Amino acid sequence: MSSVVITGIGELTTNDPAREGLLGLVEDAAVVLDGDTVVWVGPASEAPAADTAYDAGGRAVIPGYVDSHSHLVFTGDRSREFAARMTGEPYSAGGIRTTVAATRAAGDEQLVSHVARLVAEMRAQGTTSLEIKSGYGLSVHDEARSLAVARHFTEDTTFLGAHVVPSGTTPEDYVDLVTGPMLTAAAPHARWIDVFCEDGAFDVDQARAILTAGSDHGLRGRLHANQLTYGAGVKLAAELGLVAVDHCTYLADDDVSALADSGTIATLLPGVEFSTRHPYPDARALLDAGVRVAIASDCNPGSCFTSSMALCIALAVREMRMSPAEALHAATATGAAALDRDDVGVIAPGKRADLVLLDAPSYLHLAYRPGVPLVAGVWQGGRPVVPA
Amino acid sequence: MSSVVITGIGELTTNDPAREGLLGLVEDAAVVLDGDTVVWVGPASEAPAADTAYDAGGRAVIPGYVDSHSHLVFTGDRSREFAARMTGEPYSAGGIRTTVAATRAAGDEQLVSHVARLVAEMRAQGTTSLEIKSGYGLSVHDEARSLAVARHFTEDTTFLGAHVVPSGTTPEDYVDLVTGPMLTAAAPHARWIDVFCEDGAFDVDQARAILTAGSDHGLRGRLHANQLTYGAGVKLAAELGLVAVDHCTYLADDDVSALADSGTIATLLPGVEFSTRHPYPDARALLDAGVRVAIASDCNPGSCFTSSMALCIALAVREMRMSPAEALHAATATGAAALDRDDVGVIAPGKRADLVLLDAPSYLHLAYRPGVPLVAGVWQGGRPVVPA
Ligand SMILES: [Zn+2]
Ligand SMILES: [Zn+2]
Repeated sequence: MSSVVITGIGELTTNDPAREGLLGLVEDAAVVLDGDTVVWVGPASEAPAADTAYDAGGRAVIPGYVDSHSHLVFTGDRSREFAARMTGEPYSAGGIRTTVAATRAAGDEQLVSHVARLVAEMRAQGTTSLEIKSGYGLSVHDEARSLAVARHFTEDTTFLGAHVVPSGTTPEDYVDLVTGPMLTAAAPHARWIDVFCEDGAFDVDQARAILTAGSDHGLRGRLHANQLTYGAGVKLAAELGLVAVDHCTYLADDDVSALADSGTIATLLPGVEFSTRHPYPDARALLDAGVRVAIASDCNPGSCFTSSMALCIALAVREMRMSPAEALHAATATGAAALDRDDVGVIAPGKRADLVLLDAPSYLHLAYRPGVPLVAGVWQGGRPVVPA
Repeated sequence: MSSVVITGIGELTTNDPAREGLLGLVEDAAVVLDGDTVVWVGPASEAPAADTAYDAGGRAVIPGYVDSHSHLVFTGDRSREFAARMTGEPYSAGGIRTTVAATRAAGDEQLVSHVARLVAEMRAQGTTSLEIKSGYGLSVHDEARSLAVARHFTEDTTFLGAHVVPSGTTPEDYVDLVTGPMLTAAAPHARWIDVFCEDGAFDVDQARAILTAGSDHGLRGRLHANQLTYGAGVKLAAELGLVAVDHCTYLADDDVSALADSGTIATLLPGVEFSTRHPYPDARALLDAGVRVAIASDCNPGSCFTSSMALCIALAVREMRMSPAEALHAATATGAAALDRDDVGVIAPGKRADLVLLDAPSYLHLAYRPGVPLVAGVWQGGRPVVPA
């Protein structure tokens, strides 16, 4: 493969801790990519030569987004359910069960092409790394199949058999299934295991049992917790030393201190609150207490069908009182940390060449210009997947 | 010019009052364009032949957005001021005066290319008609120049000399200038005249004098009113029978009834509230009282730098409790009405061929998928300006 030098970068967000400030900004910068890797970062005036050169024309470059929480393996449309929820009209849909039925009924090719379409949509918006969960199969066959499909698109696949108890079974029997044959079938296709730990889904004891069983099969744990009400899920995540716990909308003071002590990342999903009209999590309190905060899309057909990390950044600034710099860092470097990845989310020598060129002079425009598609180019692993 | 038939439209929003429902939806539809005009709309199975055919593949088509409120004629960047406002940090910028200084200093070509870039950005997002205001010149020369620039891009140009009183003059002297030599210089380039009627800007008596002077020069009136506090601006708009009054964030009950009685359209600009963290206007109360509601972007460098009508629709649904159908209608047909235009905002025979193909099965996805760029194709006056 050949090398590329990108010059004329008006403002480069590196996220490199060796540089100044949270974002490690470099003005009038250049970056050299060789194959799939960044090999040089610095002032444009000192840039080495490369096989080809691209002039960013003074525009900003940021690391590709790392979307650490998505549910892309499904089919079916639930836009009418969304509209009914927003207008307060009755709607007799089955909620998540609608998606489970459609997903089970879909052929393998249909499922792959549906995921491919969403992944392409994300990439066009600057997401170059993502996690994908199962959780709309809820049978041994369909959970394993969902993960096999997800594996076409990312190494960060997550077994979420414990998404909801499917109809026709008891919670006890279902947990036995999830921790038994379903886990055995799912584990070869997954890196992570996740539980929806919430009133009406799985309680803390069940979550602990499921995560423990997953660990025995080599899967690392993560949790959906404290989304809809206060509860013990976040403390469980901290106690188990999980890399990340997601949602964190309803937190007591001791939840916050538990996260600060354990180092578990709180992954906030503000698109969900936008799309369900729930109150937003208090990112400010988390950050002020020293908790690491990531932002992800939670892209899914029920509670939040956005795939836009830029919108999540704008919501983080508007609604969760994160600074624009904190929000961008949370959507890139801390998103990578939430997947325990050190090869992405940062633009520095040795890191994967995942870069987004913005049609803007500064990353500030991501929040300043909400809803505007600002992506002017994307390099993923060095390849220009959105030609600049 | 040649004719085009677009077939396979899964869901067509016509806004045609002759059809059922607010949006006049047609499923499995086709549209025939001839030159710059729509010549046929109906079921795909009955579509007549045309010179060329395009298959929408089951996706949705909506009328192009009519963005009836924008301030695009400016240069300079105020993203740092935005960031300071969001984070509560002090920032010693000059606000609007920064933009006025940059705009005055810009060469004609620079100004034209800045507007062209924003207009292209809007078009790529599905806006096919727009209004553009002056208001960052604030001198005889620079207001006339701003409007001449705006006229390159739209017939709906608005003279907003009365945006703010510039430094170095008194309000009385400035109103004399606006209603005198500035109006004389501006009028040949404008269709509309507008006043920022608010505490700290122009009061109701000044607004009345300015709108009356404009009317004497053949300009039709519109108003910015009741954005930051309660006031008499909305009642003035109703009394004068203006086509539209914009913002309407703080309304007393008798403001609402005045609008309902006069038929003046309330143009809501939810991007402003998003970007300034102010409370949103009560669209629900307006609609329930029988007031016609339009939605526009207010794209401007100070209070709201979004150009995304789709985001405005999502905000209207999330924050202002409009239904997805009401929000889309407000961003198209009622936007056209707010500019007293009957040639756009509707897909029906004889109307201008402004259509947007969505990468979605239904217009519901505009609110269901916030922030996601869903525009898959745009025809403007029959030309495929975003190739489908
Ligand atoms: Zn989730
Ligand atoms: Zn305005």
